[in-house]
Amino acid sequence: MQLEIKRIGVLTSGGDAPGMNAAIRAVVRCCAFQNIECVGIYRGYQGLIEDDFEELNARSVRNVISRGGTFLKSARSKEFMTKEGREKAFVNLKNAGIDALVVIGGDGTFTGGLIFENEFDFPVIGIPATIDNDISGTDFTIGYDTALNTVVEAIDKIRDTASSHNRLFLIEVMGRDAGDIALNSGIGAGAEEILIPEENMGVDRLLESLKRSRKSGKTSSIIVVAEGDKSGKNIFELAEIIEENLGDYEIRVSVLGHIQRGGSPSCYDRVLASKLGVGAVDALLRGERKIMVGIHHQQVVSVPLETAIKGEAKFDKNLRRVADITSV
Amino acid sequence: MQLEIKRIGVLTSGGDAPGMNAAIRAVVRCCAFQNIECVGIYRGYQGLIEDDFEELNARSVRNVISRGGTFLKSARSKEFMTKEGREKAFVNLKNAGIDALVVIGGDGTFTGGLIFENEFDFPVIGIPATIDNDISGTDFTIGYDTALNTVVEAIDKIRDTASSHNRLFLIEVMGRDAGDIALNSGIGAGAEEILIPEENMGVDRLLESLKRSRKSGKTSSIIVVAEGDKSGKNIFELAEIIEENLGDYEIRVSVLGHIQRGGSPSCYDRVLASKLGVGAVDALLRGERKIMVGIHHQQVVSVPLETAIKGEAKFDKNLRRVADITSV
Amino acid sequence: MQLEIKRIGVLTSGGDAPGMNAAIRAVVRCCAFQNIECVGIYRGYQGLIEDDFEELNARSVRNVISRGGTFLKSARSKEFMTKEGREKAFVNLKNAGIDALVVIGGDGTFTGGLIFENEFDFPVIGIPATIDNDISGTDFTIGYDTALNTVVEAIDKIRDTASSHNRLFLIEVMGRDAGDIALNSGIGAGAEEILIPEENMGVDRLLESLKRSRKSGKTSSIIVVAEGDKSGKNIFELAEIIEENLGDYEIRVSVLGHIQRGGSPSCYDRVLASKLGVGAVDALLRGERKIMVGIHHQQVVSVPLETAIKGEAKFDKNLRRVADITSV
Amino acid sequence: MQLEIKRIGVLTSGGDAPGMNAAIRAVVRCCAFQNIECVGIYRGYQGLIEDDFEELNARSVRNVISRGGTFLKSARSKEFMTKEGREKAFVNLKNAGIDALVVIGGDGTFTGGLIFENEFDFPVIGIPATIDNDISGTDFTIGYDTALNTVVEAIDKIRDTASSHNRLFLIEVMGRDAGDIALNSGIGAGAEEILIPEENMGVDRLLESLKRSRKSGKTSSIIVVAEGDKSGKNIFELAEIIEENLGDYEIRVSVLGHIQRGGSPSCYDRVLASKLGVGAVDALLRGERKIMVGIHHQQVVSVPLETAIKGEAKFDKNLRRVADITSV
Repeated sequence: MQLEIKRIGVLTSGGDAPGMNAAIRAVVRCCAFQNIECVGIYRGYQGLIEDDFEELNARSVRNVISRGGTFLKSARSKEFMTKEGREKAFVNLKNAGIDALVVIGGDGTFTGGLIFENEFDFPVIGIPATIDNDISGTDFTIGYDTALNTVVEAIDKIRDTASSHNRLFLIEVMGRDAGDIALNSGIGAGAEEILIPEENMGVDRLLESLKRSRKSGKTSSIIVVAEGDKSGKNIFELAEIIEENLGDYEIRVSVLGHIQRGGSPSCYDRVLASKLGVGAVDALLRGERKIMVGIHHQQVVSVPLETAIKGEAKFDKNLRRVADITSV
Repeated sequence: MQLEIKRIGVLTSGGDAPGMNAAIRAVVRCCAFQNIECVGIYRGYQGLIEDDFEELNARSVRNVISRGGTFLKSARSKEFMTKEGREKAFVNLKNAGIDALVVIGGDGTFTGGLIFENEFDFPVIGIPATIDNDISGTDFTIGYDTALNTVVEAIDKIRDTASSHNRLFLIEVMGRDAGDIALNSGIGAGAEEILIPEENMGVDRLLESLKRSRKSGKTSSIIVVAEGDKSGKNIFELAEIIEENLGDYEIRVSVLGHIQRGGSPSCYDRVLASKLGVGAVDALLRGERKIMVGIHHQQVVSVPLETAIKGEAKFDKNLRRVADITSV
Repeated sequence: MQLEIKRIGVLTSGGDAPGMNAAIRAVVRCCAFQNIECVGIYRGYQGLIEDDFEELNARSVRNVISRGGTFLKSARSKEFMTKEGREKAFVNLKNAGIDALVVIGGDGTFTGGLIFENEFDFPVIGIPATIDNDISGTDFTIGYDTALNTVVEAIDKIRDTASSHNRLFLIEVMGRDAGDIALNSGIGAGAEEILIPEENMGVDRLLESLKRSRKSGKTSSIIVVAEGDKSGKNIFELAEIIEENLGDYEIRVSVLGHIQRGGSPSCYDRVLASKLGVGAVDALLRGERKIMVGIHHQQVVSVPLETAIKGEAKFDKNLRRVADITSV
Repeated sequence: MQLEIKRIGVLTSGGDAPGMNAAIRAVVRCCAFQNIECVGIYRGYQGLIEDDFEELNARSVRNVISRGGTFLKSARSKEFMTKEGREKAFVNLKNAGIDALVVIGGDGTFTGGLIFENEFDFPVIGIPATIDNDISGTDFTIGYDTALNTVVEAIDKIRDTASSHNRLFLIEVMGRDAGDIALNSGIGAGAEEILIPEENMGVDRLLESLKRSRKSGKTSSIIVVAEGDKSGKNIFELAEIIEENLGDYEIRVSVLGHIQRGGSPSCYDRVLASKLGVGAVDALLRGERKIMVGIHHQQVVSVPLETAIKGEAKFDKNLRRVADITSV
């Protein structure tokens, strides 16, 4: 028999991503639209354990759609990894009369949610939000498009100074396991080389390529390196190797870092977050369980949380070819 | 028998769109990659008629990927609508030894190209670039994503002043026949109402909705109106009607205008343009004829120019529902 | 004998300007620093009359420095123009135990404040915040620098499309009485002509100049027109006249409008607002009366409100010369 | 007897700064306006030695005003530090018929220029362009305002993620000897602490301050650290010390790096560059020698190159107080 859902809790967890606020807003407003109550839970699963709740209505989320980060705040909760922690959380939810949970985050968030649902038979639905775009079953995650724009804008700025000085820049972007950010932002920023975790280019081939590039008349170069590059060298070591082998290059390193997580979300991320926030409440009301709502071929789809968690690579070989051709 | 292609001409035509430069660059570099020559044609079909050509190589398109507009410039050519004009164009192409043409633009551009191909059996391939996203057979056109971000950023600014003054703003955005920009930017900017050509909301329902909105506690409001709105009123007339009927509102009108066409392209548009530019040369070399390369489900696809030109609406009813719910 | 000040009220009034939030924040935090209480008054003088007050502490203004508009909201109050209105305001201030008032706004705001101070011998201090930069006694007003950047970014976008099409654009920017925005943004955006209220160029000279400009090889043109231009023609009429007289130009008009008021403030405006907010509380504590704090030669200065209100033009002839030379 | 000046060379040298293009443009157009010829010299003094010259006219600098970096490129030339190098440069200038040189850059650029002028009695005039604002005799250098905005926008993004996670961020900004960028951007971004080279706060006082700040209810913190901070610790060591001493803080480090040098210049920098470019040509024509044109109290002024080079600190104690108060 299906539970009637009258009161929904919403939280954000894990690394924050631009558009999380837009997703919360859509959940809250869809609840208001459906005459369901909505409760915001602060600091992810930790707030669930600490009973850090606040009633939210349609006006509570006024003007948040344009803001980066998450006004519900996020955290990683060690306590929620324990049975005791999750039991506290369950008690708090019951006491607050909450019937279901919308969790906004990445695979860690979904793993926690799935364990919780399995343990307490408590409805949990996921919304994928992480700049890394490393969730299976959804074409895009909330925050990814914004991060790409942030990276490209940053590299555009660095290109100004690289061109002015005939320099080579190594630029580290986020992506420990997935090269999506590096590959797309690298193409977008016109990078000469892109090093991603899915491939191991090898230092020798990189040096070859740089020599060719210089011969072809290029006087400055941008190399985009994903955090998770598998060359076995960190970006500063790479810089040294290049400097030793291609003497005439002046080399600089830039680690873009946390600016990639912030900023006002792009239109795409705001719309995606709005669709998925509405879709999550819709799915709960239809009685769907143990799923994440994702976007596939521009349609909102339901994906088993188990599938989503696997995080299989979506490495696009055609895109690598486009990168190689357009950096000729 | 298939023509061997050794020399490709590329032009941009019709309204300019951010990412056109990225598309030209990809065409040029894919030619370089394939050891094909590439010739830039200035001012669209008009330059074709006036023999306004320039040899382009991989270095010619250095640093253009980040720039709005089109360095080949664009124009609307009346002369190309005549047989005489097109004959001049054909002669110029033959004299320049050009074997095929890549035309970057919208439906007007494709219509011209198709007529030309039919008349002279000269290979023409289209790349969809227009901020309006009104081309059939491709999920997105180059420039559309950038325009959405430009509109959302502009409305965010207007929201600052609207909120400070408890005002209602009517904001006109581009879209004569398609409400894509209005609907998506309206959701992204958190608009209270969105008027699009695909629907005729009717002034009465708009007034009803505004009254409800104010009752619900909203003190400022943004209404996004597509150019092609079918209410039968222009935006200034709408403002007057609202002012007369809802006395307590202070109303302002803003027509965003041509800022929507410009600006540095978003990462998405740069990558899309890179994919389609490469895809166009690929398709020519494969011998494809009378097609446009588009993007569908994130893959580059070939679409008959005839299909592309039809410009059927892609109106997404689910998106309208998301707009209604998130503006509660 | 000097009043001891233990509790300060702060409000924003008139047209909003980016940086007003930063100014409020600085007032609030300087109060906290000096162990003085601070009360926010909503909707300017109207909120004063309606007793719309809220206690503010150092944490209340967290994260507001980056936001455009004013979280205290602004309004124009007709009631405050009457003796009765001002008496209500005075009673409310007394009842709330407020000893002095910081008013953030432009000349209308200061005029109201000065009348109030004269009538009730109640300390009022002004902080100049208006995008128009039309206040005497301060080199710059809060919001002006941000508005200049907003205008220049908008024109950069329009330039993309103007260059792509060899078009002439007439762009209207704010400035009813002062041409500061037009002149500075016009130079910054590389405009070919700039029409400002302080001069009457005359339509004939404009046409002459455009003809010269085209002869010199310019293929696209940007003309920046201040709202308060004295040519006796509105911008649409100007466009028609140019079209009639210079047939080969394709002309477009863009009215930038309210985007100029919004947006996250520039660093300069945030720092200026911080200096003036601190300076205002400092001045109150020093016992200064009937003044505005302004910035002159990068120092915070006190200026009699009477002087500030006069709003004499700061028209800079050298800047006009720079405009003429750099648009050669 | 005064040399008649008929042909001027212009170069950019040292670290690039946004607005250099606008300065070159103003020099070129002022030459055109005065019917003087203008020659661009590539790669600073190195190009002077290598005879890397190009004739520039008013149209050559079309559309460069909005671009970061310098299209004439910049370099540091070891050869110009030798007598032989400078002699080659002099011969090249004479052969090219160049009568005077405008050098755009910082103190290294001016030092080279002054030596050259003294050695060969060749007129050299300086325009201050460096993001560090560390030139004496001018209130601001070209590029500084843009860099401040870039830094503040980056910190705004980091603030999003800092707030979402209750984290403390240490952010390194440029400024080896001058804390201007750190102090102004720190105030603008609402930093809780700002460490600058002009002061040595001491690690102990920093820890004290952070403890106070946390007690006052702050849950996230931004500390801006100038490159040249004198604490004797680098930013990663600082992070470790804080982590050891304030256990409950999660700490992150971000080094903003070269994005600070790039980007489209702000309106202020474009106008400043336009004024100084025109001012430099004006001064040459008036016969002024061994000077830099700077901005003081909003007027273009002439400053002996010797004075400019000294680079005395402009450390503003009042600004430090504003920083302390507004971070309460």
